[in-house]
Amino acid sequence: MALLIQGGTVVTAEGEARADILCEGDTIAAVGANLEVPTGTEIVDAGGCYVMPGGIDPHTHMELPFMGTVASEDFFSGTSAGAVGGTTSIIDFAIPGPQQSLLEAYQNWRGWAEKAATDYSFHVAVTWWDMCDDETLVNSFKRSQELGAIATVHAENGELVWTLQKDIFDKGIHGPEGHPLSRPPEVEGEAANRAIRIAEVLGVPLYVVHTSCIDALEAITRARLEGQRVFGEVLAQHLVINDSVYRNPDWEQAAHYVMSPPFRSAEHQDALWKGLQAGMLQTTATDHCCFCTPQKAAGKDDFRLIPNGTAGIEDRMSVLWHHGVRTGRLTPSEFVAVTSTNSAKIFNIHPKKGTLSVGADADIVVWDPNRSRTISKETHRQNIDFNIYEGMEVTGNALVTLSRGTVV
Amino acid sequence: MALLIQGGTVVTAEGEARADILCEGDTIAAVGANLEVPTGTEIVDAGGCYVMPGGIDPHTHMELPFMGTVASEDFFSGTSAGAVGGTTSIIDFAIPGPQQSLLEAYQNWRGWAEKAATDYSFHVAVTWWDMCDDETLVNSFKRSQELGAIATVHAENGELVWTLQKDIFDKGIHGPEGHPLSRPPEVEGEAANRAIRIAEVLGVPLYVVHTSCIDALEAITRARLEGQRVFGEVLAQHLVINDSVYRNPDWEQAAHYVMSPPFRSAEHQDALWKGLQAGMLQTTATDHCCFCTPQKAAGKDDFRLIPNGTAGIEDRMSVLWHHGVRTGRLTPSEFVAVTSTNSAKIFNIHPKKGTLSVGADADIVVWDPNRSRTISKETHRQNIDFNIYEGMEVTGNALVTLSRGTVV
Amino acid sequence: MALLIQGGTVVTAEGEARADILCEGDTIAAVGANLEVPTGTEIVDAGGCYVMPGGIDPHTHMELPFMGTVASEDFFSGTSAGAVGGTTSIIDFAIPGPQQSLLEAYQNWRGWAEKAATDYSFHVAVTWWDMCDDETLVNSFKRSQELGAIATVHAENGELVWTLQKDIFDKGIHGPEGHPLSRPPEVEGEAANRAIRIAEVLGVPLYVVHTSCIDALEAITRARLEGQRVFGEVLAQHLVINDSVYRNPDWEQAAHYVMSPPFRSAEHQDALWKGLQAGMLQTTATDHCCFCTPQKAAGKDDFRLIPNGTAGIEDRMSVLWHHGVRTGRLTPSEFVAVTSTNSAKIFNIHPKKGTLSVGADADIVVWDPNRSRTISKETHRQNIDFNIYEGMEVTGNALVTLSRGTVV
Amino acid sequence: MALLIQGGTVVTAEGEARADILCEGDTIAAVGANLEVPTGTEIVDAGGCYVMPGGIDPHTHMELPFMGTVASEDFFSGTSAGAVGGTTSIIDFAIPGPQQSLLEAYQNWRGWAEKAATDYSFHVAVTWWDMCDDETLVNSFKRSQELGAIATVHAENGELVWTLQKDIFDKGIHGPEGHPLSRPPEVEGEAANRAIRIAEVLGVPLYVVHTSCIDALEAITRARLEGQRVFGEVLAQHLVINDSVYRNPDWEQAAHYVMSPPFRSAEHQDALWKGLQAGMLQTTATDHCCFCTPQKAAGKDDFRLIPNGTAGIEDRMSVLWHHGVRTGRLTPSEFVAVTSTNSAKIFNIHPKKGTLSVGADADIVVWDPNRSRTISKETHRQNIDFNIYEGMEVTGNALVTLSRGTVV
Repeated sequence: MALLIQGGTVVTAEGEARADILCEGDTIAAVGANLEVPTGTEIVDAGGCYVMPGGIDPHTHMELPFMGTVASEDFFSGTSAGAVGGTTSIIDFAIPGPQQSLLEAYQNWRGWAEKAATDYSFHVAVTWWDMCDDETLVNSFKRSQELGAIATVHAENGELVWTLQKDIFDKGIHGPEGHPLSRPPEVEGEAANRAIRIAEVLGVPLYVVHTSCIDALEAITRARLEGQRVFGEVLAQHLVINDSVYRNPDWEQAAHYVMSPPFRSAEHQDALWKGLQAGMLQTTATDHCCFCTPQKAAGKDDFRLIPNGTAGIEDRMSVLWHHGVRTGRLTPSEFVAVTSTNSAKIFNIHPKKGTLSVGADADIVVWDPNRSRTISKETHRQNIDFNIYEGMEVTGNALVTLSRGTVV
Repeated sequence: MALLIQGGTVVTAEGEARADILCEGDTIAAVGANLEVPTGTEIVDAGGCYVMPGGIDPHTHMELPFMGTVASEDFFSGTSAGAVGGTTSIIDFAIPGPQQSLLEAYQNWRGWAEKAATDYSFHVAVTWWDMCDDETLVNSFKRSQELGAIATVHAENGELVWTLQKDIFDKGIHGPEGHPLSRPPEVEGEAANRAIRIAEVLGVPLYVVHTSCIDALEAITRARLEGQRVFGEVLAQHLVINDSVYRNPDWEQAAHYVMSPPFRSAEHQDALWKGLQAGMLQTTATDHCCFCTPQKAAGKDDFRLIPNGTAGIEDRMSVLWHHGVRTGRLTPSEFVAVTSTNSAKIFNIHPKKGTLSVGADADIVVWDPNRSRTISKETHRQNIDFNIYEGMEVTGNALVTLSRGTVV
Repeated sequence: MALLIQGGTVVTAEGEARADILCEGDTIAAVGANLEVPTGTEIVDAGGCYVMPGGIDPHTHMELPFMGTVASEDFFSGTSAGAVGGTTSIIDFAIPGPQQSLLEAYQNWRGWAEKAATDYSFHVAVTWWDMCDDETLVNSFKRSQELGAIATVHAENGELVWTLQKDIFDKGIHGPEGHPLSRPPEVEGEAANRAIRIAEVLGVPLYVVHTSCIDALEAITRARLEGQRVFGEVLAQHLVINDSVYRNPDWEQAAHYVMSPPFRSAEHQDALWKGLQAGMLQTTATDHCCFCTPQKAAGKDDFRLIPNGTAGIEDRMSVLWHHGVRTGRLTPSEFVAVTSTNSAKIFNIHPKKGTLSVGADADIVVWDPNRSRTISKETHRQNIDFNIYEGMEVTGNALVTLSRGTVV
Repeated sequence: MALLIQGGTVVTAEGEARADILCEGDTIAAVGANLEVPTGTEIVDAGGCYVMPGGIDPHTHMELPFMGTVASEDFFSGTSAGAVGGTTSIIDFAIPGPQQSLLEAYQNWRGWAEKAATDYSFHVAVTWWDMCDDETLVNSFKRSQELGAIATVHAENGELVWTLQKDIFDKGIHGPEGHPLSRPPEVEGEAANRAIRIAEVLGVPLYVVHTSCIDALEAITRARLEGQRVFGEVLAQHLVINDSVYRNPDWEQAAHYVMSPPFRSAEHQDALWKGLQAGMLQTTATDHCCFCTPQKAAGKDDFRLIPNGTAGIEDRMSVLWHHGVRTGRLTPSEFVAVTSTNSAKIFNIHPKKGTLSVGADADIVVWDPNRSRTISKETHRQNIDFNIYEGMEVTGNALVTLSRGTVV
């Protein structure tokens, strides 16, 4: 059956124009002004709205077994929440357990994902959560090159984190405020630079996940200004939440924000926005990994035992629009690039995803730039009992989301 | 009449895909795989080729009255040469004479341009060739802001150039080798930084023409990394020709390369390429301004009197493809961005120009990435008796160029 | 008569050692451990103290005619206050009035200075307070080079200041809070970079007075990392006072801090300290220029009319020791370099001044690192009715100051 | 017995002045103009000469057991050669063998050093030549802090070197030209940054030996501009010899230059000079480690087996004076700082060494700035059968060297 999105302003990473979009089956059949409508076509009125490629979240962890528990959001609930917010594809991480083979891990994740409400794909982790040494980095980068894959890295120096965690705990700091102290920006900057330099020497491209601080951003910037193909991801939450959350005297409230890398001070947020504006960071993600309040309580007496992770797949696009586009930092076209197109290109699913050209998957979001809502756990679809953006009013929200031509 | 470009790989600034393009009249009517062909449609076979938006040269000087003579290339010959090389639009500079009004200058240029073979537009210069002082910069930037125009600057410190020219001439250096000595990179870097800083304080966007050196590039990079909306243009010739040309003992050969800013040493070229790769420079131009050998001879005894300018509109795209895309520095998609789309967006003619979407002007180039030719004054269409790229073999050339749906 | 400073730790820019110092007449006669004492020698007990070269303040304005009034501190009162704080030499600015010759200005200043309590020297300004254009900069730098003099610049873009002052005043901001708004960091950064670049092209050394912000510091740092001989001065007050002072609702309190460049936000102070630590800034000064509260009142209705200037010669060294040495930012040896030796070397009065070697002028301060005092207008010797450091407790103060061998 | 150095210009890290120096026993007894001479004093005429603190070479390897052989220069021959060139102290490395204790290694080295002709001291290596992992770095830095010692690092990423060596050898490159290919600048830059970042997190000072490239220099510069106490050493040979030496078709000639880090391209030399001028690098050393031509032949078929090391203790100061002071890059005072004083201060032997104050060791060099010689293995005292500076003419040489008051 055909569906026509009519009267909106079509936005792609390239630019914007007034146009209609005709979807047939699960793909886009036509894009143009005043398209003729076949009889029986369903009409979606996009008047006053932007029509954009559905969002791609390149970094999620649905139903992840981690730190002795399992993330509360499964592939169905998580992708459903994403669709509500305008995200139509996720790339999750298949992470082998100790001694488990990559292939077996991949098959587990694939099984779990069958219930997803939208499209999905996977990164595959080389190791369990232990940090890599140089030998593993060098060898896995070389293997990626042989396979034509792109290596991604979580950049934190594990030895320093371990040392600092111990020092801080031994000094009597046991609560969530110890978490950011044990993972200062230098720890991330060092690891990012190391991975980037090794990639440079070996001549392989590299993707750095959840860049959270000036130190890592500078390593990426230096490399890109030298012409190296290095890509940087930033999480929506790192752009708008700062490290004051860990100083909340309410243990539960503070523990809700425990994730790695941790939230940073305001100067880092400012730098991350500028990195996004200048094209030094290319993608925005969530690292969506939900642990409910009772799960977080496992670390009641030791911040090192609090399951790491925060949610956000439902709110990523609204938060970025509100704080990015409405403030003049990003144009609508740049918004599409950083929420969708760049991920599609880096992970090689463009032009099926991340664009609105004829023949592409009809993953589309009709975006009302004037629609406001207040983010709250009371109204969100995410399967978690709190929301890190609780009470934030955002203007600019998805009106209709299509996944492969079907309204979700 | 309809025209179908069939079997090629369509490349835009966003990405690439196999698709046909149907043109009707002067616009694009459809883009998609295996388009149905109305009877009587002319077919252009693009098999094995890329199909791209026609090039936009945002910086030319056709038939310019300058330094006591007039540039030899007129709007017809210049745009024709451009079309042969894949360029379908130019933005020329209307420059008032001393005491002349802007409007009168604009009308003169507009009259001269009527004979153009492709589309054209104009920048309007605020002053005759004299350099601006701070007061002029501040006032013209403020006025641009009121008008919604974008200010462009030619960045060289005039006082330093004048002082150095005099010192060098007085030391007995009278030949073309004195030209680059009188305009070192610092002179450009200082002026670029000044204009950028003033724009920053006033909150206006800025476009810096013909960035030729590390010093100016760093000023642009600093600003962009701070989130400022500053754009940088680079000339194709600055990317591939270095300052050794001025040391040619043959006066005529050396004088052919006299333009401002001058050609620079190899380290600057390397930096400019990296700036283009990293997105710090957004557009490529030519500053096309032709003076034939007898015209250059006006400065036989004094390099300060050699008419400044070099040609290049015909070869810009081939040179950039050969040295940029074939070397792996740029993807085809990035090539389209820097030769066409970015100029269209910055100067507000997108999406009529610079893209291949339905409804856009059918300014299209069918690009054969494997076609080679040797650049030479013997074969070029440009109205000038030498070619600064003489003897350079370039692989990657325009096969067919359409201006508003018509094969040129 | 002979005087022996006994039992202290002698500190120079090179390092520190336990030693006595014997002064004969106005020079240093011996430095060494356990010096033999001629009969009749006066003994100064320096036990537990550092013994350092007397401070040099390379930037003062005693009894300056400015903005319709005259600075309240004269050469006698100002140098006396300096001596109390450990400063034994000043370099003041002789500034010609409109149409006045340099020589005549110099002779006026020289006459006024005869009453000084310590040694003094002069810079000579090229112009009245108007800002220089490029031509003046180029010509005066070239003339400095011929004379073997070093050029110094006050770096602010006058055109931008004038425009911003007018815009701000016209918007209805008439109080002291308008002062910093009209002189943002970019205005200083642009001017510093311009002067530095021009000096680079002409091959002359340059001294930038009162560097107050990241923007100017970066221009200096870039140049020094390229091997250019550029020197940067920072004022003690810019290191420890931030721009919140201008938001004081008490007009008088806010007006007390009006000087140019204005006080900056905290991130600039942090950068200035780091610049001092890294050797990018070489000297510390005060720009000592006193206007009492009734004088400041001239700008009651228009911040542009408030006489610009703050005092500080008496407190410079204590403030720097307290906030610089006690915090670990500077070693005692680095303290001597930035308060004395570097100025002596840059302005060519070393080794008569700025050191403790045999034959040098006996300008010496015995410094008690544990002596505390609270800075206050109630107790200071400066001839001004307020103190910008009012209430600041500083540990580390001069115990005895010698000017040419005489206790002051 | 007393010795008077008369009529010279005394230079220290602080500045210069005309003065005589009187030595009594092994220390300096007086410094001043026209000193009175006790009867029987030996006179050294320093007319027309500079009188400077004897050089300190903070990085040597005398009689080192390494790569299956032993360095040919022993403590007597090495320190003698140093004294001829103006160097009066060395700091050698005591390096434990596999399984050997630090203390035992130290005692071995101490025994070997008894025959030295001048003063010496030791660094102690934590490991055999294997590269450190993060755990070793973190733990040894923490231990240094507890001891009040300063950590020094040789910065090269061992895993990358190993991988590149294997790749290059397997591609059929077996000669000395493979050596620099296996140790590109990125390998050094990554390791330097890693060590610096770890030191930053732990709050310990750090000394980076033989900084040879832009990449490592930038890591040091970034840290110093942030106020971190990081010190950088550069070898005289890295400043004046470039990597073209490895492309010498004569195997022996090329093998003579095999050391790590390898010689670099010219742009790195230029940056190192600028780093020295700007104070980002503080010390100059030699890494003096002599292997004669027959020893180098061990790697005839495999560059990985060529013993790493070059000589230079005899020529360091002349080479630096000729290329540093005579070119205007360094003042005589800066020369003293980087050849002597800074090492003395960093390694805590100042003011016994590195200065010319009363009470200091009488380690003094009388330096004739106009004396020329041509460096050659035919005339050098070093115990090695070639000289990496062979044929270089240097103006500025030691005329007389005193070690503890005795002419050497």
